[in-house]
Amino acid sequence: MAGKLVRKKGKKAGSAPGTLVFSGASPDAEAHWQLLQYNLDSIEQLNLSSLQQLPPAKPDSVRWLNLCGLPGIAPIEQLGQVFSLHPLVLEDMLNTDHRPKVEAHPDYLFVVFKMLRFHPDSREIRAEQISLVLMEQTVISLQETPGNDFDGVVQRLLAGRRLRGFGADYLAYALLDAVVDHYFILLEQCGDHIEQLENELMTAPTTAVLAKIHHFKREMLLLRKVVWPLRELLSSLLRDENPLIKPETRIFLRDVYDHCVHIIDTMETLRDVLSGLLDLYLTSVSNRTNEVMKVLTMMASIFIPLTFIAGIYGMNFEVMPELGWQYGYALILGLMACIGGGLLWYFRRRGWW
Amino acid sequence: MAGKLVRKKGKKAGSAPGTLVFSGASPDAEAHWQLLQYNLDSIEQLNLSSLQQLPPAKPDSVRWLNLCGLPGIAPIEQLGQVFSLHPLVLEDMLNTDHRPKVEAHPDYLFVVFKMLRFHPDSREIRAEQISLVLMEQTVISLQETPGNDFDGVVQRLLAGRRLRGFGADYLAYALLDAVVDHYFILLEQCGDHIEQLENELMTAPTTAVLAKIHHFKREMLLLRKVVWPLRELLSSLLRDENPLIKPETRIFLRDVYDHCVHIIDTMETLRDVLSGLLDLYLTSVSNRTNEVMKVLTMMASIFIPLTFIAGIYGMNFEVMPELGWQYGYALILGLMACIGGGLLWYFRRRGWW
Amino acid sequence: MAGKLVRKKGKKAGSAPGTLVFSGASPDAEAHWQLLQYNLDSIEQLNLSSLQQLPPAKPDSVRWLNLCGLPGIAPIEQLGQVFSLHPLVLEDMLNTDHRPKVEAHPDYLFVVFKMLRFHPDSREIRAEQISLVLMEQTVISLQETPGNDFDGVVQRLLAGRRLRGFGADYLAYALLDAVVDHYFILLEQCGDHIEQLENELMTAPTTAVLAKIHHFKREMLLLRKVVWPLRELLSSLLRDENPLIKPETRIFLRDVYDHCVHIIDTMETLRDVLSGLLDLYLTSVSNRTNEVMKVLTMMASIFIPLTFIAGIYGMNFEVMPELGWQYGYALILGLMACIGGGLLWYFRRRGWW
Amino acid sequence: MAGKLVRKKGKKAGSAPGTLVFSGASPDAEAHWQLLQYNLDSIEQLNLSSLQQLPPAKPDSVRWLNLCGLPGIAPIEQLGQVFSLHPLVLEDMLNTDHRPKVEAHPDYLFVVFKMLRFHPDSREIRAEQISLVLMEQTVISLQETPGNDFDGVVQRLLAGRRLRGFGADYLAYALLDAVVDHYFILLEQCGDHIEQLENELMTAPTTAVLAKIHHFKREMLLLRKVVWPLRELLSSLLRDENPLIKPETRIFLRDVYDHCVHIIDTMETLRDVLSGLLDLYLTSVSNRTNEVMKVLTMMASIFIPLTFIAGIYGMNFEVMPELGWQYGYALILGLMACIGGGLLWYFRRRGWW
Amino acid sequence: MAGKLVRKKGKKAGSAPGTLVFSGASPDAEAHWQLLQYNLDSIEQLNLSSLQQLPPAKPDSVRWLNLCGLPGIAPIEQLGQVFSLHPLVLEDMLNTDHRPKVEAHPDYLFVVFKMLRFHPDSREIRAEQISLVLMEQTVISLQETPGNDFDGVVQRLLAGRRLRGFGADYLAYALLDAVVDHYFILLEQCGDHIEQLENELMTAPTTAVLAKIHHFKREMLLLRKVVWPLRELLSSLLRDENPLIKPETRIFLRDVYDHCVHIIDTMETLRDVLSGLLDLYLTSVSNRTNEVMKVLTMMASIFIPLTFIAGIYGMNFEVMPELGWQYGYALILGLMACIGGGLLWYFRRRGWW
Ligand SMILES: [Mg+2]
Ligand SMILES: [Mg+2]
Ligand SMILES: [Mg+2]
Ligand SMILES: [Mg+2]
Ligand SMILES: [Mg+2]
Ligand SMILES: [Mg+2]
Ligand SMILES: [Mg+2]
Ligand SMILES: [Mg+2]
Ligand SMILES: [Mg+2]
Ligand SMILES: [Mg+2]
Ligand SMILES: [Mg+2]
Ligand SMILES: [Mg+2]
Ligand SMILES: [Mg+2]
Ligand SMILES: [Mg+2]
Ligand SMILES: [Mg+2]
Ligand SMILES: [Mg+2]
Ligand SMILES: [Mg+2]
Ligand SMILES: [Mg+2]
Ligand SMILES: [Mg+2]
Ligand SMILES: [Mg+2]
Ligand SMILES: [Mg+2]
Ligand SMILES: [Mg+2]
Ligand SMILES: [Mg+2]
Ligand SMILES: [Mg+2]
Ligand SMILES: [Mg+2]
Ligand SMILES: [Mg+2]
Ligand SMILES: [Mg+2]
Ligand SMILES: [Mg+2]
Ligand SMILES: [Mg+2]
Ligand SMILES: [Mg+2]
Ligand SMILES: [Mg+2]
Repeated sequence: MAGKLVRKKGKKAGSAPGTLVFSGASPDAEAHWQLLQYNLDSIEQLNLSSLQQLPPAKPDSVRWLNLCGLPGIAPIEQLGQVFSLHPLVLEDMLNTDHRPKVEAHPDYLFVVFKMLRFHPDSREIRAEQISLVLMEQTVISLQETPGNDFDGVVQRLLAGRRLRGFGADYLAYALLDAVVDHYFILLEQCGDHIEQLENELMTAPTTAVLAKIHHFKREMLLLRKVVWPLRELLSSLLRDENPLIKPETRIFLRDVYDHCVHIIDTMETLRDVLSGLLDLYLTSVSNRTNEVMKVLTMMASIFIPLTFIAGIYGMNFEVMPELGWQYGYALILGLMACIGGGLLWYFRRRGWW
Repeated sequence: MAGKLVRKKGKKAGSAPGTLVFSGASPDAEAHWQLLQYNLDSIEQLNLSSLQQLPPAKPDSVRWLNLCGLPGIAPIEQLGQVFSLHPLVLEDMLNTDHRPKVEAHPDYLFVVFKMLRFHPDSREIRAEQISLVLMEQTVISLQETPGNDFDGVVQRLLAGRRLRGFGADYLAYALLDAVVDHYFILLEQCGDHIEQLENELMTAPTTAVLAKIHHFKREMLLLRKVVWPLRELLSSLLRDENPLIKPETRIFLRDVYDHCVHIIDTMETLRDVLSGLLDLYLTSVSNRTNEVMKVLTMMASIFIPLTFIAGIYGMNFEVMPELGWQYGYALILGLMACIGGGLLWYFRRRGWW
Repeated sequence: MAGKLVRKKGKKAGSAPGTLVFSGASPDAEAHWQLLQYNLDSIEQLNLSSLQQLPPAKPDSVRWLNLCGLPGIAPIEQLGQVFSLHPLVLEDMLNTDHRPKVEAHPDYLFVVFKMLRFHPDSREIRAEQISLVLMEQTVISLQETPGNDFDGVVQRLLAGRRLRGFGADYLAYALLDAVVDHYFILLEQCGDHIEQLENELMTAPTTAVLAKIHHFKREMLLLRKVVWPLRELLSSLLRDENPLIKPETRIFLRDVYDHCVHIIDTMETLRDVLSGLLDLYLTSVSNRTNEVMKVLTMMASIFIPLTFIAGIYGMNFEVMPELGWQYGYALILGLMACIGGGLLWYFRRRGWW
Repeated sequence: MAGKLVRKKGKKAGSAPGTLVFSGASPDAEAHWQLLQYNLDSIEQLNLSSLQQLPPAKPDSVRWLNLCGLPGIAPIEQLGQVFSLHPLVLEDMLNTDHRPKVEAHPDYLFVVFKMLRFHPDSREIRAEQISLVLMEQTVISLQETPGNDFDGVVQRLLAGRRLRGFGADYLAYALLDAVVDHYFILLEQCGDHIEQLENELMTAPTTAVLAKIHHFKREMLLLRKVVWPLRELLSSLLRDENPLIKPETRIFLRDVYDHCVHIIDTMETLRDVLSGLLDLYLTSVSNRTNEVMKVLTMMASIFIPLTFIAGIYGMNFEVMPELGWQYGYALILGLMACIGGGLLWYFRRRGWW
Repeated sequence: MAGKLVRKKGKKAGSAPGTLVFSGASPDAEAHWQLLQYNLDSIEQLNLSSLQQLPPAKPDSVRWLNLCGLPGIAPIEQLGQVFSLHPLVLEDMLNTDHRPKVEAHPDYLFVVFKMLRFHPDSREIRAEQISLVLMEQTVISLQETPGNDFDGVVQRLLAGRRLRGFGADYLAYALLDAVVDHYFILLEQCGDHIEQLENELMTAPTTAVLAKIHHFKREMLLLRKVVWPLRELLSSLLRDENPLIKPETRIFLRDVYDHCVHIIDTMETLRDVLSGLLDLYLTSVSNRTNEVMKVLTMMASIFIPLTFIAGIYGMNFEVMPELGWQYGYALILGLMACIGGGLLWYFRRRGWW
């Protein structure tokens, strides 16, 4: 098994709430903040190594502060000071094993969700945590690992004015949408993998296939743990009348919600199919045992009586009249052929071969 | 397995929401719009190759614009412009793998549902997506594949005045009703197929039957994914007090809702029966293994001891008094018959044959 | 399997809603309406062959119009005209495969439910549909098949004044109560049948018993499809404040509701017991295979080594010193007895016999 | 199986509602009413053979009328007349197979619940129905069978003033509490029985243990049918703002409710453990079959080839050079030892012994 | 099985509610109360052997009264008198098998929950009950067993001013948080144990592993019984607008609630994995039986026919021409080699080895 069933937390139990502990891969490296500031007329892109370089917000502009790869505790603490974020929010940003959720604070919405990727070599689904803070004019996005998951959105912002005409809430929607769109690709890959497992099972039901099915069933458990809370998250974004989200953006959130429900439907179907494969495996093992038994039973049932007859005439009694008959040997061979043929015919009639 | 578990989407993840992508079979062909405009007194039928040919709406008339077979992106974009539809609605019309749903927009209701057909040769259930837009006086219906699913409704409109006396909402109901009525036929076909599988299982429980049961269980999963959301859709049409649907039409929608609940009941029963068949198969394999074992055990238990006795008197010891007896051979044969008969009687008493 | 899994509907899909189609056994026979008109002081009974003979309603009287055996379309159409019933109500009356439900119309309540009977010969549960219309002073009841299910209620009306002192709503309650009371009898019969199956399984677990359990499990599915919606029906009668049902009658409806919940409890228990029987069957087959294997293994393990020893001394080597010993034969027989006895003792100690 | 799956009801289906029918054991015996009338200062105890002897109620006193063992119809009818109880309440009092419930009437609360006892000899759980009527100053309790389940409460009333300081509602609570307290004892006994079954299964997995597990699983079904409705009952007593129950008594009812939820938790755990035992049994049968097969396969695989070799040198061909060799016999015996030892070593390496 | 399925209660059923009965380990020992009284500026720590030594409360200070190890009835009765607690609260404090719950009383909140620890030697999860009373300025915590579970919180109070700046409600939150943080450690240990079981199953699927899986599945049942009610408890603390809990503390309670939901997610995943292991075990037993059968069938199918042939030429008929042939023996040996090789090839082609 490649991954741990339960992720180790660095945090010592009993420490104060809001104590920042980093559970990611590369602690306390330098942070590379990407800043995009735009409105309908203009857009500018900046790379900052510290939030002290953050330029002041312009009126009528949207600011998007993006970070690829969590750098450790210090930059997150700085982020908290600059934007007055609650200590528990900072704690959740650094705890990369958090359940997807949305949390309304007086001045901002805090959203946690997961990017999911299928690794075809290890046949594993790996999750990358993404934290989002949505304010009046600002969106902050933190990605657990390096590599920008939102390249498509950056390109669309730079390429044309369409996306730039909407506010910060629409940008937040666009980031959620990009992640959910990726789930469809993931499900296709999972579906392909399951079909491949099914084919292997049909042609050669080895124990290796069983182990693969068992392993992938567990990967699907991870998928569930990520997608069901996301649905809850989106539904609460739609339901709660938070003023940070404008009515015209709600229509788009409803669209992502639709996609999420569709993904859940497909995911549960895949799970049912996987369970069906395990049942099929068990049944096919029973079937093959049955086949093996039939071969044994036919061989034994035919030859054991014949061997018994041969044994009789191998006995050394002095008085055994048949032994002296001219055609004794031929008669016995004929009798044996009759018995063997009769048993063969009997098994044929019972449908054993 | 005939169909893919998860349908490939053409759309590149990360593209802008509302970007139209066509996932159907024949992209950018010419559209053949069918227009029916009617009131109690008159009805006229028109075929349009472009919506630019669309005549203006008459007061006190209902307009039904029907399209059989999605023609690609351009005609749908035109439709969106002519009727001022939201870009996300257009996107959903072209995405033919959408979950059934109803969506209330300020001026119209957008409904997505599925026509289902059972293909007896491949024993598959295939879905065709249908999109419906209901406006004050207009109904737009888009069918995924060629061939008009609503021929019956067209005939009733042309044949008599009854249906023409109601408004656009009743027409929308009539289209939903036509599709749900077809589900009953589908369930009958599924039921017949399952009974046939049951008969095959009873007469000859081969692995081919097992594969068929397994395959059809998966087809039923598709059915569920279509019918449960339809129930939700109809229930929300009934519950929400949308002014586009008149109270007298609600009684008819309640009737389709009843049918849908009945269909779900029957479908779940069929699923239970199918699951029961799999259990029955497994039990019957165990049973047959047990039968095979009994044959083997009886043959071996009877003849192995007898062969042992024959083996004893086949030994070549110089001093073996029995070998010289006059009736030694006859006595041993008699002993063997007693042992064999005794074992046969014992197995009979245990109910093995 | 005696019955079809899914009932064929006569209706062509796509026909107009409210089109009357008869799915019963004897279409368009003559209708025999039974009319009972009563109040505290008097009661009169009439048989009508047509509703044109229906006498006018008397003030302060309750009218009960009862029909045993659906006669086909024409009399139901006449009923609709006389009492101004909605076409969809008439359609449901004739569709004898309807799900139990209650439907509130402005002037009447329309109720559909099922009489259930256990047929001991075919071990099947058969349903008869009953439709009820409750108006201010009138109750109409339609029974699918001939034979009056409400004989008891008729007798009580004729016999004494008690039941005649209540209104039409109490009469409707009495009809529902008569049907639900019959469910208790049905459950007793089902329980007896299941206990009998259990006894058969305990004494002789043949495949015939398995088929019977499997078959009855399916009959129980039918039971569920009828009883759960009935509970919903009764609960909605209790909850909705329909003026047609007086408060003092509600106490009685709560009593039927109690009975219905009790019936569901018992039914689910029976289903659990049936499922347990299937598990028990599978386990007992495994057990018996294990027993069979033990017999085979003991016979083979004891006699195969002995036969081998006999085989050794049946070899024809010229130099085999043991063959010439005086007590060689006796020694070998003793050795064989020791080996056989040792193996027997070993199997005994392992608890195999 | 000791008890009937479904209890026979004496009542003829179709009889009038409120018709009193007695389903208990000893119909129409004489009733022995126990009357306790008390307030903080005094308490008096009376035995009445008829309710005509009932003394008038004293102001500021609580009256408790208790009956152990249902005497039949007549005394219950008398009770109904004296206290103006609804006929359906009387019917439910006599129907001793009723589901636990609470029913609010204008002047009183009617409560039905069950005393449960574990009979260690037959390993059965038996239920005794208890009906309770709570009025302003009066509590009536009817117990199905002789023997007072409320001896403890009587003792506490007679012993000290504590319980006498509360009203009739507290007395009703005390009776419910006494029954629920007894459920804890029952669960301990069930738990002990299940642990004993588990031990038997571990040491000797015979079919008798299987039958016991199967039987006790059914007893637990009865337990569920009694305890889940009791929880509903208590929750509705807590929720509904019935003036008969004072706020200070509600705190105590919440305590019984807590106990009931705890009992349900434990009960469901016991059910899970029982189901686990059945799975364990099935697995252990498979395991033992596997063990048996290994013994057979090793015996047969070792001795069948050896017997074949012996058979070769038992053939009577005239030209068989080995037979004349000086050490032929010894060589063949050595070869046999090698083959046998090699197979033994092979099976050892595969972990078969 | 190490622990009892159902804990014995000391209390005699039927005793008065609020009767204090001690179900813990060391009844009526001396109590060692720990008192911490603090505000932002100062903190003092006191050890009391009796509550008579309790100093009066200071204004603007928080008092925390902690007890490690339940001492028996008398000190709890004293606690009840000093703080005017309801008798039922005292009863629940002493009943150490209580379900986690929160109970609002007019002047205080009463909370019951469990500390859980994994004991690696016996592979058991053991629970310690903790009772909490939250008043305006006071927190009382009772721990079932000696050893302070809240050492971390004590240290944080003594070490710095942060925690001392909040009120009694925040202290109560910090205690809940300390326990929930410990659950994460427990889940890691459970996860490690399950992975170890999985590895054992993969390398050597013995019955000992089966027993371990079965045993740990039961331990997980205990976990569920503790964690699901805790979620309910926290959710009701969040939902109910109790004035004892200030709005700024609610944000922190939401954080513990998040953790609890995360723990439930992980716990249910672990349960699914454990169930999967049992299925895997059953399948692997079937697989191994199949392997064993193949070995037996191949050995028997190859050697039984050969032995039969040898048996034929071991017969003593006087007229058996083959016996006199020069190359008879060689021919027969060649025939046997052909038959054996052919069967071997056949089994190879069927994939048996
Ligand atoms: Mg993994
Ligand atoms: Mg925390
Ligand atoms: Mg947090
Ligand atoms: Mg992660
Ligand atoms: Mg990552
Ligand atoms: Mg999207
Ligand atoms: Mg398919
Ligand atoms: Mg989109
Ligand atoms: Mg969409
Ligand atoms: Mg489609
Ligand atoms: Mg199609
Ligand atoms: Mg229809
Ligand atoms: Mg209808
Ligand atoms: Mg199963
Ligand atoms: Mg049937
Ligand atoms: Mg219709
Ligand atoms: Mg019917
Ligand atoms: Mg009928
Ligand atoms: Mg009744
Ligand atoms: Mg019983
Ligand atoms: Mg009744
Ligand atoms: Mg009743
Ligand atoms: Mg009883
Ligand atoms: Mg109690
Ligand atoms: Mg334990
Ligand atoms: Mg109590
Ligand atoms: Mg309590
Ligand atoms: Mg404890
Ligand atoms: Mg402890
Ligand atoms: Mg915490
Ligand atoms: Mg299972």
